[in-house]
Amino acid sequence: MSLISGKQPIAEGKTKRVYLHDEPDKVILYFKNDITALDGLKHDVIHGKGYINAYITKYLFEKLEKAGVPTQLVEYVYPNIIIAKKIQMLPIEVVCRNIAAGHLVKKLPFFKNGQPLNPPVIEFFYKSDELHDPMVNEYHLQALRITSEKETLQMKDYTLKANRVLKDFFNKRGLIFVDFKIEFGRLSEDNLVIGDELNGDSMRLWASPDGRKAFDKDGYRSGDALDKVRETYIETFKVITGEEPLKEGLES
Amino acid sequence: MSLISGKQPIAEGKTKRVYLHDEPDKVILYFKNDITALDGLKHDVIHGKGYINAYITKYLFEKLEKAGVPTQLVEYVYPNIIIAKKIQMLPIEVVCRNIAAGHLVKKLPFFKNGQPLNPPVIEFFYKSDELHDPMVNEYHLQALRITSEKETLQMKDYTLKANRVLKDFFNKRGLIFVDFKIEFGRLSEDNLVIGDELNGDSMRLWASPDGRKAFDKDGYRSGDALDKVRETYIETFKVITGEEPLKEGLES
Repeated sequence: MSLISGKQPIAEGKTKRVYLHDEPDKVILYFKNDITALDGLKHDVIHGKGYINAYITKYLFEKLEKAGVPTQLVEYVYPNIIIAKKIQMLPIEVVCRNIAAGHLVKKLPFFKNGQPLNPPVIEFFYKSDELHDPMVNEYHLQALRITSEKETLQMKDYTLKANRVLKDFFNKRGLIFVDFKIEFGRLSEDNLVIGDELNGDSMRLWASPDGRKAFDKDGYRSGDALDKVRETYIETFKVITGEEPLKEGLES
Repeated sequence: MSLISGKQPIAEGKTKRVYLHDEPDKVILYFKNDITALDGLKHDVIHGKGYINAYITKYLFEKLEKAGVPTQLVEYVYPNIIIAKKIQMLPIEVVCRNIAAGHLVKKLPFFKNGQPLNPPVIEFFYKSDELHDPMVNEYHLQALRITSEKETLQMKDYTLKANRVLKDFFNKRGLIFVDFKIEFGRLSEDNLVIGDELNGDSMRLWASPDGRKAFDKDGYRSGDALDKVRETYIETFKVITGEEPLKEGLES
């Protein structure tokens, strides 16, 4: 806590707070225990969630870095802090899907739940709770000056690379990598990196092809009891990292 | 009428009927006088509309062909028939926008009405009255096997080329080419052409930068009297083709 004690956050989202770092090219990401769904309408607190999600983010960002996909990660600090490169976050979410589920099936019902998507589907959403994150395409992004043509290509390239790396990794763990959401930030012009976080909250990870057993947030979305939701977070930690979470961390 | 007399249409849409042609690689497109809006909820009949829209389609398709953009056009037959290549129509609408207006501003209000879009924005919509033609992207199209990667590129290329040709042409007529909608059909694998129709119903064409005077269907959409709507069709014929419509055609 000494990293942030006495400091005021410069930004606060639903699940994280951002603090200045002593070094001007870095920021401190503090992962909260808050869990939300439905554009923030549903909200609870789960002890250990900040720890679990910060640790998984660090674990997966390291995998991506090793595969040549740049991320915001500088250093993980136990239990729930990530020191990160200071970047200008883009106001969009990038979703990549290997199997049709969730929002896609609801909005475009000519896709059926569980339908394999080949090639994978990439979607861009403009971040706006008020407008419910409407889908946009790469032409909108360029007309809005959110990304240059080069940056759009970079996002698509990094997203597909990240998808391949993660899909292979999860397959080896016996899991089905259904879809994931990432955000990008600008380190400098035409130089994007994956930022924010990457964990069970940002993906669908199925233990079986019917999706009934899953290591993701869909249980919370559909009304599971908080105890069960917490158990799923702990299980997700284990299946993704292959490690046991620290008891003290889970109580933090 | 002899071309279709005694024949049953093989397909009928809101504004056209399709008949078989004696030659198996051609079809007959018969332009009706029906006018519709709001997914078909609004419906009227305007004499001469079939003539006007068939003739403008022929006029603009010829312009595109000359500029190297292939279309379905074979031959125009006065007053309201187009002999066309037999193609497999794709179940999508392709919209290209030079200025933000209409659906874009309504759905994505961070775009402002009248805002120039540079580069132009291309959007794909899946044709479904029931789902209100939802927007899809090129990844959806490929995952749905609607278009191959090559065909997607072809559509984008032809759409941007058509936009340049039409924009230049309308600019010379003193008009502002806001946006247009086209549909594509497959002549053979990886070989698409622009099909269906292209006229005042498929574009926004403004006489002034505020869009108050326009040669398009927005007046009908917003409740103008039918007489006024008919006048706009006749004016649209004149400003696009630079010709006087035939009196008899307008009464057909």
